[in-house]
Amino acid sequence: MILSREQVTGLILAEKKRCNLKWSYVAQQVGESKEWTTAACLGQMQMNKKQAEVVGHLFGLTDEAIAWLQIVPPSKGSPGIPHDPLLYRMHEVLGVYGRTISELVHEEFGDGIMSAIDFKLDIQRDPDPAGDRVKMTWSGKFLPYKPF
Amino acid sequence: MILSREQVTGLILAEKKRCNLKWSYVAQQVGESKEWTTAACLGQMQMNKKQAEVVGHLFGLTDEAIAWLQIVPPSKGSPGIPHDPLLYRMHEVLGVYGRTISELVHEEFGDGIMSAIDFKLDIQRDPDPAGDRVKMTWSGKFLPYKPF
Amino acid sequence: MILSREQVTGLILAEKKRCNLKWSYVAQQVGESKEWTTAACLGQMQMNKKQAEVVGHLFGLTDEAIAWLQIVPPSKGSPGIPHDPLLYRMHEVLGVYGRTISELVHEEFGDGIMSAIDFKLDIQRDPDPAGDRVKMTWSGKFLPYKPF
Amino acid sequence: MILSREQVTGLILAEKKRCNLKWSYVAQQVGESKEWTTAACLGQMQMNKKQAEVVGHLFGLTDEAIAWLQIVPPSKGSPGIPHDPLLYRMHEVLGVYGRTISELVHEEFGDGIMSAIDFKLDIQRDPDPAGDRVKMTWSGKFLPYKPF
Amino acid sequence: MILSREQVTGLILAEKKRCNLKWSYVAQQVGESKEWTTAACLGQMQMNKKQAEVVGHLFGLTDEAIAWLQIVPPSKGSPGIPHDPLLYRMHEVLGVYGRTISELVHEEFGDGIMSAIDFKLDIQRDPDPAGDRVKMTWSGKFLPYKPF
Amino acid sequence: MILSREQVTGLILAEKKRCNLKWSYVAQQVGESKEWTTAACLGQMQMNKKQAEVVGHLFGLTDEAIAWLQIVPPSKGSPGIPHDPLLYRMHEVLGVYGRTISELVHEEFGDGIMSAIDFKLDIQRDPDPAGDRVKMTWSGKFLPYKPF
Amino acid sequence: MILSREQVTGLILAEKKRCNLKWSYVAQQVGESKEWTTAACLGQMQMNKKQAEVVGHLFGLTDEAIAWLQIVPPSKGSPGIPHDPLLYRMHEVLGVYGRTISELVHEEFGDGIMSAIDFKLDIQRDPDPAGDRVKMTWSGKFLPYKPF
Amino acid sequence: MILSREQVTGLILAEKKRCNLKWSYVAQQVGESKEWTTAACLGQMQMNKKQAEVVGHLFGLTDEAIAWLQIVPPSKGSPGIPHDPLLYRMHEVLGVYGRTISELVHEEFGDGIMSAIDFKLDIQRDPDPAGDRVKMTWSGKFLPYKPF
Amino acid sequence: MILSREQVTGLILAEKKRCNLKWSYVAQQVGESKEWTTAACLGQMQMNKKQAEVVGHLFGLTDEAIAWLQIVPPSKGSPGIPHDPLLYRMHEVLGVYGRTISELVHEEFGDGIMSAIDFKLDIQRDPDPAGDRVKMTWSGKFLPYKPF
Amino acid sequence: MILSREQVTGLILAEKKRCNLKWSYVAQQVGESKEWTTAACLGQMQMNKKQAEVVGHLFGLTDEAIAWLQIVPPSKGSPGIPHDPLLYRMHEVLGVYGRTISELVHEEFGDGIMSAIDFKLDIQRDPDPAGDRVKMTWSGKFLPYKPF
Repeated sequence: MILSREQVTGLILAEKKRCNLKWSYVAQQVGESKEWTTAACLGQMQMNKKQAEVVGHLFGLTDEAIAWLQIVPPSKGSPGIPHDPLLYRMHEVLGVYGRTISELVHEEFGDGIMSAIDFKLDIQRDPDPAGDRVKMTWSGKFLPYKPF
Repeated sequence: MILSREQVTGLILAEKKRCNLKWSYVAQQVGESKEWTTAACLGQMQMNKKQAEVVGHLFGLTDEAIAWLQIVPPSKGSPGIPHDPLLYRMHEVLGVYGRTISELVHEEFGDGIMSAIDFKLDIQRDPDPAGDRVKMTWSGKFLPYKPF
Repeated sequence: MILSREQVTGLILAEKKRCNLKWSYVAQQVGESKEWTTAACLGQMQMNKKQAEVVGHLFGLTDEAIAWLQIVPPSKGSPGIPHDPLLYRMHEVLGVYGRTISELVHEEFGDGIMSAIDFKLDIQRDPDPAGDRVKMTWSGKFLPYKPF
Repeated sequence: MILSREQVTGLILAEKKRCNLKWSYVAQQVGESKEWTTAACLGQMQMNKKQAEVVGHLFGLTDEAIAWLQIVPPSKGSPGIPHDPLLYRMHEVLGVYGRTISELVHEEFGDGIMSAIDFKLDIQRDPDPAGDRVKMTWSGKFLPYKPF
Repeated sequence: MILSREQVTGLILAEKKRCNLKWSYVAQQVGESKEWTTAACLGQMQMNKKQAEVVGHLFGLTDEAIAWLQIVPPSKGSPGIPHDPLLYRMHEVLGVYGRTISELVHEEFGDGIMSAIDFKLDIQRDPDPAGDRVKMTWSGKFLPYKPF
Repeated sequence: MILSREQVTGLILAEKKRCNLKWSYVAQQVGESKEWTTAACLGQMQMNKKQAEVVGHLFGLTDEAIAWLQIVPPSKGSPGIPHDPLLYRMHEVLGVYGRTISELVHEEFGDGIMSAIDFKLDIQRDPDPAGDRVKMTWSGKFLPYKPF
Repeated sequence: MILSREQVTGLILAEKKRCNLKWSYVAQQVGESKEWTTAACLGQMQMNKKQAEVVGHLFGLTDEAIAWLQIVPPSKGSPGIPHDPLLYRMHEVLGVYGRTISELVHEEFGDGIMSAIDFKLDIQRDPDPAGDRVKMTWSGKFLPYKPF
Repeated sequence: MILSREQVTGLILAEKKRCNLKWSYVAQQVGESKEWTTAACLGQMQMNKKQAEVVGHLFGLTDEAIAWLQIVPPSKGSPGIPHDPLLYRMHEVLGVYGRTISELVHEEFGDGIMSAIDFKLDIQRDPDPAGDRVKMTWSGKFLPYKPF
Repeated sequence: MILSREQVTGLILAEKKRCNLKWSYVAQQVGESKEWTTAACLGQMQMNKKQAEVVGHLFGLTDEAIAWLQIVPPSKGSPGIPHDPLLYRMHEVLGVYGRTISELVHEEFGDGIMSAIDFKLDIQRDPDPAGDRVKMTWSGKFLPYKPF
Repeated sequence: MILSREQVTGLILAEKKRCNLKWSYVAQQVGESKEWTTAACLGQMQMNKKQAEVVGHLFGLTDEAIAWLQIVPPSKGSPGIPHDPLLYRMHEVLGVYGRTISELVHEEFGDGIMSAIDFKLDIQRDPDPAGDRVKMTWSGKFLPYKPF
């Protein structure tokens, strides 16, 4: 049987549902953050041998599936702006505040970008009497444009 | 003379360049965060009378321009995914990590979204010996879907 | 056998057709409105255990399908403007009256939005001698933009 | 001077801002609902001579502008799905609940559509201790498909 | 076996090809025009029980397929402008003459539309010594916009 | 002054509005159908010298504008499917009945198309006690594909 | 087994590859040009009974496949501008020289088009010491726009 | 005054209309084919000094405009598939016959393309008792893909 | 079994993964550069008989798959701008520096293009103490536009 | 007078044309490569004070224009794939060889990207008896994805 990377993701999600595992538990076993571990299971990041074997053991994957986890994902990212309400609102934030972010980053750092590769993501529940909040922290290395 | 909201933004940016003002200084005068103040000056948020007058004073705006600052911006957000390298990378983060965010928010909170209206943005320089980092914090109230 | 959420929807629609059940009857059994219940069966809302079991019983679903009904739907909404005549006309209403709605909501409430999450929908037949009418009521909490 | 219909809308909005008129007041003078009157002022509906003169008087319009108000608007509606947060959420409602509406209308009426021409819109503030709500009512004649 | 509506259309077209039936003959049996009958067979219109049984008998359809013919088609219309030369040219006619049609309908009837629901289509061969012509007649009820 | 073809159309429409002329009257003066004459005035057809002078006289055009009327319009047609409710519905008719038209034309004539160049359009009011109807007749020469 | 027209094309191409037949040889057997014959085999043109049987014999097709060759292809043409380098360059030629062609055809013939239906295509190798050339000749009947 | 290249094209077309010059006459003066000369005047090709001065003389252009004619056009080609009936049909030819061209060129020459740069275009009237024809000849050097 | 070209690529990639072969090793066996060899294996270039047999031997391909490698790939290139971070950045380089490249090539060579057919690609690791670099060299024959 | 960044670019290009300056000469004066200098003049890079003054002196720019050169360009890059033949071919190279580049970079470096920010471009004429070649070298730092 020849699996695609998407099918490996499907097997992980199905088994996760069946066993009622939490991503934070998976991450703990893998030894990385829950954000990176989830991204890696969903086919956006490459695991090393040991990480892949831990995940393979947790979800009962075959050797072929475990091999897939150690390969550079053939295509990352996703096209366009999704219509899912949760994901759309995050793109909307960039629509409303994008130019603001641009102004403030350039004022502080000069011309350049926030790296999306040398990048860390953190997601927490922020308790609040007026209703708990989702708190996301994005940390990316500033990379300057330089003359050459 | 009849101004559009975009022209008011243009006048603010031109004067800011001429006087070499910082957004954090403008924010201090307005009494709100630098993130909200910048967004308001760029035509994404509505100021109250006092805030508008402070901004009008700082940038030497006419009464008509100051009136514009107090009106609900006729169209917010921006269409599609921009090709500017800084802004593109933030949309790419959502492409690479979007489904991860979705999984983790739903695991923690159940079905619903992070509000983009009851929302706060914070941008800081995060000093790092391997190169300083841009650190953004997004905080949005979780809004659950409920049966009706 | 591994079902997708779309296949669960297909099984419900096929069985509904075979048994000639009405959505209002399904809703009565579930104990929620016909609008929410239909949306949940079509894979846009998450049911709790009891609701899912009632639906599973009505349509003779397997345990796996009943499990699917209790999970946050992986992708909600639908892309773009459909060409189906019934659905197109509702988008056309927003094209013709959208700016009017925007003007009237902002005049009444100030800057902000009508929530699409804290939202209720009601659809009724409105008898009329000149031809009966479809009467839809949309009720969404107003969410204001606030400085931060 | 040759005006376009868009410029007439611009003149009305500018004068409305200057005089701080409310749409409900304009509607009262015109003798129609605030929803229809706003849509007509924004260039989506055709006024009769008397209505146009009332509006022309309120906003100090020239004869040419008043003539424009009595002409079938050359192009109605608007293209695509807007990125403005208020307007986007209403399209999202149709994305999430569209198929539900379709199922319920067809179950109740059989094959056909809700007219977007023989159509009435009503927008109200719905007071609520948990936060006031926007309440919109859409009423459109049901038009059946018939064999021919 | 679970059929989709598209598969029912496929079965009809395959059997029609095998038996060399004409649409006008099918229409005669059904007792409606050839235009409506073809559209109904292709999944754009809903048949009543008797019509569906006639069609089922002609094309040797199963009970499940005959049931499908009596259901409101889940999605009508088709997206965008097709590249098929025959269909493209009809859209081109609307591109070249659309504004002309708009001017002449509005001059004659005032603001409103030609209904695409209360609508009849007729297609005939129009013999002509310079080459026979396709003659299509479109008849749709005029629906006026009215104040409310 | 250098006019564009669009500006000539604008001058005609403005003068038509001022003088309250009917397209059928213009057509009578030109000596062609109201459909062709309207299309020619709107910049979709080329007039000969005499036709152009008649139109120039009726609308008080300059020699330059009259010259424009005699030139092959630089770009005909219009892009995509318009959102104007009147024009949209005609494209929808092609979405719903397009494949039906294709089946019936091919059954009657064999492989080929209805010409959009050797084409005539006729628009009439069709009185009806249940509400008057718009009646459009399209007549285009059938052009067969032939081996070569 | 029920074939689609695309599958018939696939069978022809596979057999052509296996037997190493040339299109010019196929055309000779069919008795038409290599350009028309290739287009017909690829599902863009309708063959008569005799032509279809010749092609069926050459490629060992079943009766069902031979029947498909005699039917008007359900959808001709192809959407958009392809990214294949050979095909793209031909669209680029129309991008660079399109307006030139338009100017020269209109100067020579007046308003109208080159028919794409009453059309012949010829492709030859044009030997050249500086590198052989592809020589394509397009011949289409000129069709004038006429008043009606 | 600072001209754009498009404005130079506009000046040429306006003067050509005023003086009723033919492209073939312009080409004769320039000493190149009518196809290349037209393309160069329309801003798709770069003229040398002498050619530019001839064109400048014919159309009474300023030195600045004549300078523009000698510069590499800043952007050639045109985007997408135009809706103009003449130009659309040529793209349709490529949609209907594109894969045929691809098959025949590859069969004759192997893998590679017909150059759109080392390319010649010729347009002629082809007299025909059944109606004169447009005859276009495309000649482009074949460029092979080679291993490296 | 009938393979598609994509399936041949899939077989090569799966076997390459299983045997842990390097592209440079494959290229050495084939006797061409690693860049051309990889492109040919991925279905963008046509191999000769000997090259195809070497590749077939290395990856254990069937005769049918080896035949596919010797055929002109039916469709080359890929549509649009990919969202994969690695590939996107290379398109971004063209967005940021494209006009620069255009200015410098035209200043050096005059009007024309860099061939994408008579083209060579070379990719190397460029060691650098501040972090190793990817070094790509593109070499394409300059092709001038010439009058005809 | 208030300039936009695009107008500054226009002034530079017009003056460059008038004085017949070469980009390599401008670069020499600025003290950076011709590639970076051209990009900076075209509004893709930010100059420091000294660089801007040199450029201002060469092209006779006003203080306002010189100020613009020292500001982070408000929007970099360009949208989509251009239809200009020179620029299109470079995107086509990425279409044909993109997956090849991806395979070879990942084989050599592991998961990550070639930076488009820490990036250098070099363009040279490569003399060749079979026709001179354009030789471009791209050098970008490899940035690895790392767990966090």
